Amino acid sequence: MNTAALYHRTESEHAYLYEKDHFHIRLRTQAGDVAQVELLSGDPYTIEGDKWYENGKEMRKIASTNLHDYWLIDTHEQTNRMSYGFHVTGRDGIEVFYSDQGVYPYDEAFLQEASFYFRIPYIHEIDAFKAPEWVKNTIWYQVFPDRFENGDASIDPEGTLPWGDKENPSRDDFYGGDLRGLINRLDYLEDLGINGIYLCPIFKASSNHKYDTIDYYEVDPGFGDKETFKELVDKAHERGIKIMLDAVFNHLGWHSPQWQDVLKHQEASKYKDWFYIHSFPVDNLGEIWHSSQKWLNGDEFHAVMNYAFNDNIENYFLKKIITPSRMVSGLNAQMMLYRQQTSEVMFNLLDSHDTSRLLTKAKGDKELVKSALAFMFAQKGTPCIFYGTEIGLYGEMDPDCRKCMIWDEELQDQEMLGFTRDLIGFRKYYQKILTYGEIEWHDVRDDEQLIGFKRTLGNESLIFYFNQDKDDAFLDMLPSEAVLSLETATVHYDNQAVLHENGFVVYYHVDTEAEKRMRTEQKRQRTKERMKRMKVLPSHLVRN
Amino acid sequence: MNTAALYHRTESEHAYLYEKDHFHIRLRTQAGDVAQVELLSGDPYTIEGDKWYENGKEMRKIASTNLHDYWLIDTHEQTNRMSYGFHVTGRDGIEVFYSDQGVYPYDEAFLQEASFYFRIPYIHEIDAFKAPEWVKNTIWYQVFPDRFENGDASIDPEGTLPWGDKENPSRDDFYGGDLRGLINRLDYLEDLGINGIYLCPIFKASSNHKYDTIDYYEVDPGFGDKETFKELVDKAHERGIKIMLDAVFNHLGWHSPQWQDVLKHQEASKYKDWFYIHSFPVDNLGEIWHSSQKWLNGDEFHAVMNYAFNDNIENYFLKKIITPSRMVSGLNAQMMLYRQQTSEVMFNLLDSHDTSRLLTKAKGDKELVKSALAFMFAQKGTPCIFYGTEIGLYGEMDPDCRKCMIWDEELQDQEMLGFTRDLIGFRKYYQKILTYGEIEWHDVRDDEQLIGFKRTLGNESLIFYFNQDKDDAFLDMLPSEAVLSLETATVHYDNQAVLHENGFVVYYHVDTEAEKRMRTEQKRQRTKERMKRMKVLPSHLVRN
Repeated sequence: MNTAALYHRTESEHAYLYEKDHFHIRLRTQAGDVAQVELLSGDPYTIEGDKWYENGKEMRKIASTNLHDYWLIDTHEQTNRMSYGFHVTGRDGIEVFYSDQGVYPYDEAFLQEASFYFRIPYIHEIDAFKAPEWVKNTIWYQVFPDRFENGDASIDPEGTLPWGDKENPSRDDFYGGDLRGLINRLDYLEDLGINGIYLCPIFKASSNHKYDTIDYYEVDPGFGDKETFKELVDKAHERGIKIMLDAVFNHLGWHSPQWQDVLKHQEASKYKDWFYIHSFPVDNLGEIWHSSQKWLNGDEFHAVMNYAFNDNIENYFLKKIITPSRMVSGLNAQMMLYRQQTSEVMFNLLDSHDTSRLLTKAKGDKELVKSALAFMFAQKGTPCIFYGTEIGLYGEMDPDCRKCMIWDEELQDQEMLGFTRDLIGFRKYYQKILTYGEIEWHDVRDDEQLIGFKRTLGNESLIFYFNQDKDDAFLDMLPSEAVLSLETATVHYDNQAVLHENGFVVYYHVDTEAEKRMRTEQKRQRTKERMKRMKVLPSHLVRN
Repeated sequence: MNTAALYHRTESEHAYLYEKDHFHIRLRTQAGDVAQVELLSGDPYTIEGDKWYENGKEMRKIASTNLHDYWLIDTHEQTNRMSYGFHVTGRDGIEVFYSDQGVYPYDEAFLQEASFYFRIPYIHEIDAFKAPEWVKNTIWYQVFPDRFENGDASIDPEGTLPWGDKENPSRDDFYGGDLRGLINRLDYLEDLGINGIYLCPIFKASSNHKYDTIDYYEVDPGFGDKETFKELVDKAHERGIKIMLDAVFNHLGWHSPQWQDVLKHQEASKYKDWFYIHSFPVDNLGEIWHSSQKWLNGDEFHAVMNYAFNDNIENYFLKKIITPSRMVSGLNAQMMLYRQQTSEVMFNLLDSHDTSRLLTKAKGDKELVKSALAFMFAQKGTPCIFYGTEIGLYGEMDPDCRKCMIWDEELQDQEMLGFTRDLIGFRKYYQKILTYGEIEWHDVRDDEQLIGFKRTLGNESLIFYFNQDKDDAFLDMLPSEAVLSLETATVHYDNQAVLHENGFVVYYHVDTEAEKRMRTEQKRQRTKERMKRMKVLPSHLVRN
């Protein structure tokens, strides 16, 4: 066994409170190297019987990358604190005890030493990271306000161009999109099925993108006023749509009073510490504010743009520079960097106002766009659609990706719109499985560019197949009827499916045997817990 | 190469600001598996020339355990943010690029992808953990006030026993030690050479140990009052001695008004959330307050009791259950869990009011006590002497380890006292090397129980040898004259030393060649930095 590859880190994504009474403990081992992992755990301050720890609690392998396997156990201690170590058995039969003092032979002499163990201090439920429940059921839609809809021409900035005037908008163009326009299109968004709007900045600023905020307390006059904003929020909420504001507190605009003060007074400015200044005198600025999202830290925010995760999807589906198994490896590795509750609310996206558009990344291949979107919708986290992706907008890196939204139905890609609507419906219908369900990559074929995976929650599963090969893929013995597929690239015969290139299909399956097993196991656990509690209670509280 | 054993973690003890302009980057590899590690790093937003990153920055192997090697580079980016990855060359000749997206072949195609790299966000100097400078030069002395000296009999608690009355004090005995007594003995402590008093709790409480605080705003009347405490602090400071208070904010005493309120009102008590209560009704439940120090987190405190580190010293020297190399492995593994600046101020101790006394752990072997103490004093961190260890007090686990201090010089172990004074003098004289110097374990022999290591800072080194074997150890070709040794177990001949069991010796050595090399290297670095700065500055700021 490769003991040098064993890794566990206390008080991290490897050891955390998932929710009340659910400690999650993870262990990393070398891929394919370890046959079994068991947890030894207990509370050394509540000794019962001849030893303070319990052993033999089996851990499950929950994810693999090209280098590592990850093991998990969902456990708890009644006293809310725990000392623990790992009993690791290699495929070569070697058994070790891995704990805070490193790797030792699996020998009673070391097992008894409480000081050798990893420790979870007294865990407070309040310390567990917990995202609002509604976030998990949200399908986001990103709106770049100047380009979504012009609803009030009377507040158009000077020099506003006619809607959609240029094939390729320039960096400084204004098109007059505003909050009234967004209000007018809420019915469209409700019909599409989305239930969260990720709204790019609307605070007072001089550019069209408003990332150069002048005043966080004012709505930009070209977009509307506070009353209009309140109306937007109220009308969105009536439709069950949440609004998320993009507020960039690590940028300040050129025209902000603070920066103007620095320009005027230089080192004497009382605002000089608000900025990171390379050297005085200063006279030119923007580059150093770049790329803030990448620096966001999971400890401080409920969720972050899941770039490193989605890069794997892009590198496989769109750039085609990695293999299916390498993508799976990358997705799993990223997932294992976060606590499970964090993964459940990560913000998944394949394009945005800062990237070229999905259709352009796919070199105009609409079926590929659909396949990649469906794949992203099938992952843990909350998916986001960039405005216009659903009706076939294309565009290179910004400013080209910020073309005006097309509202003429004859110019919209109705087929893509219908697909997006179905995909959103699918995601909402099976949200619990897609948010909480475990993922098992049961059929990943590098040579055939086929990816089969399963999301399972309790006795319900969604079974996915994606074919990215030029050759057709054939699926036999289908588990049930398909609940979603790319109809243009998927053909079903009797109990067989053919996936053309970009074809994908999803089956829903209920394992009735699993249901029975689950109920039996739950009952067994409850009895065990009851028995344990009886023993731990002070004797005068036990009714005879 | 075993790529599964590679490990790096961003924004952790593996990647941190040591001090202004000094990023420390560490990498973990399998022990003995890797021939060379180089850092690739740069700031992708300040591209110069044909690539944004610099490669070929060699990392140094700084520590090894039985499983791992650790590599370090001290580097920086002028913009205070950095993307980086590792070029790892195995002893088998295989070269890989290890970064945020995992392990890839060392191939230009991957190296160019900025999104693959680990990232250090914009680093603020204020975010760097920094301990007060004086802590590093402190030798602590732990005082348990009721047993150190009775200076004011008029405030003795009822039932106070005569000083040293029992061979084995009981849990509830009072001996009348107080703050006045400590003031009276400051000359003794100054003469011993210590410059920090770690004072066990002095707040109002009912027990002799005062860990059951009733009121954090009052000095216990059996110890004195606030005026006496102020006098103690002033008089200690006059002698260059700091006072550190032991304030246990996660305990509250039985007699505290808050706990009494819970006992009276049970679930209706407004203080019920101050405690962790297993179940109501409560009537007994002290055990759960145990062992708080172990839960201390390096993020919140400047330093913690370095138990896991010192356990290794104890397991080797005193319990004799591990080999020298296993001890070294354990010490290095613990060291690598912390940022360098944390290790520099860790609190090292071999006994305390919560353990049996060092002399008892050593089964009365005074030479072994001296050897273990000297070994601890030679490590990074600040050493602590438990009151009485310096004059040969012994005792089992508490309350036995809390015997009254002996002030009759004829009953004190004067030889141990002299040794402790020398050891403290040595530590203070060579403090910079012992705090900042790198450690190299250049001669660790499991079969001969010999440990040779070197602490090096710049061109100065301290070279240590410890012999724990029954057989003598012979050292030839001594690097210089000894600056410290256990005289009773160490004999020097012409250019040769003989270490009997428990013998140890320390040599001080200046490498004049190293000094020249260092100066040349510093000059080269300064020139390089100047050149780089010239290129990065806006062109109008460069004077032609």
